[in-house]
Amino acid sequence: MFTSRKRARSAVDHSAENAGASTGMSRRRLLGAAGVGAAVGAGAAVGIPAAARAASATPSPDLAYPFYGEHQAGIVTPAQDRLHFSSFDLQTTSRAELVALLKAWTAAANRMTQGAAAGQFGPTGGSYDGPPDDTGEAQGLPPSGLTITFGFGPSLFEGKRAAALGTAGKRPPALADIPAFPGDTLDAAQSGGDLCIQACANDPQVAVHAVRNLARIAFGTAHVRWSQLGFGRTSSTSTSQQTPRNLFGFKDGTANLKAEDPGLLNDHVWAAAADGAPWMAAGSYLVARRIRMIVETWDRTSLREQEAIVGRDKGEGAPLSGGTEFTEPDFARTGREGKPLIATDSHVRLAHHTTNSGAQLLRRGYNFVDGTDNLGHLNAGLFFLAYQRDPRKAFIPMQTQLARSDALNEYIRHVGSAMFAVPPGVRSADDYIGSGLFA
Amino acid sequence: MFTSRKRARSAVDHSAENAGASTGMSRRRLLGAAGVGAAVGAGAAVGIPAAARAASATPSPDLAYPFYGEHQAGIVTPAQDRLHFSSFDLQTTSRAELVALLKAWTAAANRMTQGAAAGQFGPTGGSYDGPPDDTGEAQGLPPSGLTITFGFGPSLFEGKRAAALGTAGKRPPALADIPAFPGDTLDAAQSGGDLCIQACANDPQVAVHAVRNLARIAFGTAHVRWSQLGFGRTSSTSTSQQTPRNLFGFKDGTANLKAEDPGLLNDHVWAAAADGAPWMAAGSYLVARRIRMIVETWDRTSLREQEAIVGRDKGEGAPLSGGTEFTEPDFARTGREGKPLIATDSHVRLAHHTTNSGAQLLRRGYNFVDGTDNLGHLNAGLFFLAYQRDPRKAFIPMQTQLARSDALNEYIRHVGSAMFAVPPGVRSADDYIGSGLFA
Repeated sequence: MFTSRKRARSAVDHSAENAGASTGMSRRRLLGAAGVGAAVGAGAAVGIPAAARAASATPSPDLAYPFYGEHQAGIVTPAQDRLHFSSFDLQTTSRAELVALLKAWTAAANRMTQGAAAGQFGPTGGSYDGPPDDTGEAQGLPPSGLTITFGFGPSLFEGKRAAALGTAGKRPPALADIPAFPGDTLDAAQSGGDLCIQACANDPQVAVHAVRNLARIAFGTAHVRWSQLGFGRTSSTSTSQQTPRNLFGFKDGTANLKAEDPGLLNDHVWAAAADGAPWMAAGSYLVARRIRMIVETWDRTSLREQEAIVGRDKGEGAPLSGGTEFTEPDFARTGREGKPLIATDSHVRLAHHTTNSGAQLLRRGYNFVDGTDNLGHLNAGLFFLAYQRDPRKAFIPMQTQLARSDALNEYIRHVGSAMFAVPPGVRSADDYIGSGLFA
Repeated sequence: MFTSRKRARSAVDHSAENAGASTGMSRRRLLGAAGVGAAVGAGAAVGIPAAARAASATPSPDLAYPFYGEHQAGIVTPAQDRLHFSSFDLQTTSRAELVALLKAWTAAANRMTQGAAAGQFGPTGGSYDGPPDDTGEAQGLPPSGLTITFGFGPSLFEGKRAAALGTAGKRPPALADIPAFPGDTLDAAQSGGDLCIQACANDPQVAVHAVRNLARIAFGTAHVRWSQLGFGRTSSTSTSQQTPRNLFGFKDGTANLKAEDPGLLNDHVWAAAADGAPWMAAGSYLVARRIRMIVETWDRTSLREQEAIVGRDKGEGAPLSGGTEFTEPDFARTGREGKPLIATDSHVRLAHHTTNSGAQLLRRGYNFVDGTDNLGHLNAGLFFLAYQRDPRKAFIPMQTQLARSDALNEYIRHVGSAMFAVPPGVRSADDYIGSGLFA
């Protein structure tokens, strides 16, 4: 029932392939824990003894992250498992109404991240005659590591209304326009937006509840432009986390920036007062790209081809130049006929900071499946989220290179795009999100 | 920023409303644990002491349910938290190819539910030159309570191809056509199908991996017709589980059938040999309805109205006739002016077995949010799944009554519909799913 899909490619040396292929039926956990060289008898009984699995670090449902702080939570916070992301269009031109919305969002976000309801469960004032100030579907659920992160899109600073909103002339230089890349097939309805909310939690009902209540609070002032659920994280943002897999089945984000390296975060993630927009100091810039993956085609591609395209082996996630997952790729190393072991058009090479003038991103993306398209294919992919100090020096040049040459492009389509300035954290209960913009 | 949405309704007695309204800002877990009468100081600090929360029974990630058995798993199995459901259209008219597909699905489903890969991680035969026999995104993940449940749609038994497929004349009488109900706005592209797969797990990546690999195995024989992810269960199927909440914020499935009552399951869920299709004995019939919820309108409806429509109070889930969540509703009890405390058009009354000739369903539905519609509303709702011995005596008459009179209809739209005969379990490694149909 399989169709083997082959195409002409330069030969790639697979010195480890026999070991990999001889593992027979691999067991999910075992392969991850023991590495690609583990030889498991192909005829062994199905099932994995629990003891053979690496201990999984499941976060406590009672985990609650502080809302107040120098930076917004949800950036270097260890990436939670589930996402609800929403982009909003503003419906008002009143600065006072925008500030009131941001204050109301700030108060509700603080409450919800601490495991409380968005407002009173009954209506404000205590009567049954109004709608409840919380929609209720998270009643009984613990905080679940919820973080809520807010951002401002370029459109908030542009056009006639900017003067009335008090945002005219305050657009940060780093909040650049994302250029059109070769191969982009963007849907405007899934792109852009004046405001964004990223809700991450280890329980999706808690993340959905957060966005839904913030949308409810915004009623009449801003409405949802587009919205994306992510069911599984595709990056680690802390050395305490195992590297997850994307829907191509490969480990993703191995070389990601991590919370444990504040020096790199200061260089690559946190905006500074000197960067041109003092109100953004300790904030960051978020690029969101909805990347559709053509998984049905990928699934009919040979393992050799898949690994050559990615530049890593599929089981362990080791670079094809050798070693294990966290071994640095050796792009100079060659195999048969003097060809590089990591192909020149492989994803790992083109995305690596050494091929991008040292630029690095803090990736925080999620897998998604949104039903089926009209061809009977899963509408699946990666909702790419990346934080950075300056997209002009990070995402934009990296994606320019990837869009031009990445071998993965045959299997992906960028269908949504947005960028947001993510202001610094709220310092105290007297403060509100983005207050520096309106000071 | 709120709009209070009111409409004329008969007065409903809310004797408990003052107690409810006086709880001030309710804390998610506390309200669920302590009930509607708990008085919490409105000025208390935000945040919930962990000790105040009911212990949550989080299933172990290593939980693996047996695949072989009298019944298929995934019916009375304690409802897992996440769902990926897919409906398939058959592309072959060959009985041999259909049977080969069912055998391949059976083998892969057995392996995946036990935490193993769908096939060999490398291609069958051990070469790197074919596609892997597992897509890889669940490598490293534990079984996560995965169950995979298969069903056959009415269309499999109809038309010219049924003779070639060996299904002609074998359609079970209980696999009835679902009539058009008043208010239905069904999308054919989200309805029907020859085959279905329900994958439930406590990790969505595990559920998605299962459906995706079964779709990959079906390549050339069957393709996905429609697919639905559910992020949160809306029913308990075991007395060991807490009642979850739907996206109207109410507890759902309080009066559901439970695994712990085999007598009721035999009466209402499991098909018997004498029911007209001997090959379906120990199987069941699944009705799937995609129910869009107009949450933005609901969220602007008063708490009084919401509770009157549902017939239960929102905090505790107690019937409006009094008591606590599991108190039987007293439909005869009246309040002010002699009007029934539980309104005649309330959902709980019209769906209750005492108003439906004793009919009961085993509900197993899930909350969904699929982005945003073109009005800027969350594309959210309930993916209703219900198992029953005979839909002609259960879902169909119940939905006939609800579609006609349920006060909830103003806030919901049925947009997808399907029914499937879910055959008995696979007894051993020599058996395959639906073998009785081809015996």
